[in-house]
Amino acid sequence: MAEQFDQVSVVKKANVYFDGKVTSRTVLFADGTRKTLGIMLPGEYDFGTDSKEIMEIVAGRLKVLIPGRSDWLEIDGSGTFEVPAHARFQLVVYSVTDYCCSYVEE
Amino acid sequence: MAEQFDQVSVVKKANVYFDGKVTSRTVLFADGTRKTLGIMLPGEYDFGTDSKEIMEIVAGRLKVLIPGRSDWLEIDGSGTFEVPAHARFQLVVYSVTDYCCSYVEE
Repeated sequence: MAEQFDQVSVVKKANVYFDGKVTSRTVLFADGTRKTLGIMLPGEYDFGTDSKEIMEIVAGRLKVLIPGRSDWLEIDGSGTFEVPAHARFQLVVYSVTDYCCSYVEE
Repeated sequence: MAEQFDQVSVVKKANVYFDGKVTSRTVLFADGTRKTLGIMLPGEYDFGTDSKEIMEIVAGRLKVLIPGRSDWLEIDGSGTFEVPAHARFQLVVYSVTDYCCSYVEE
């Protein structure tokens, strides 16, 4: 797991959702790919995807319901899950959660 | 005002303060300087500085009490203020605030 991303661009303005309970920063890579580094405060959230997303939880405690699965995935500490393109997923966040989301164009 | 910072490094792990009500991401520049891109949720905060800080409010509504001044500086939308090294300053944040903090070594 990279401790930092080098030779990237960072968009100055934040992405703000749910009255600021979910916020992120966009990181642009030289190869044209994109990640967001975000924070989710405790709460229940419903998100939609455009592209496929790989969500790496860097720190936090939460559960996620991924499309096509009937059981919630629980994460306490760190973990990773994928969400398909054009899908919705639900999150219940129990503690401040630090994440890194990679967008995968297929 | 730069819309994005290019050829920088970004630390993956977030900086988290006040139970996540204030969070930021560290951006490292090739010249050795450092900025943080942060979010403050509504609340009252007291911060201390190590180096001199130039705080650029990108979006938000808040007031700040800078050391050595008796009146609060009110910012609604965008604005900038400086805080000396080794000082404390107080903030009252009224709406989700997006900021860019530059650390100035003197």
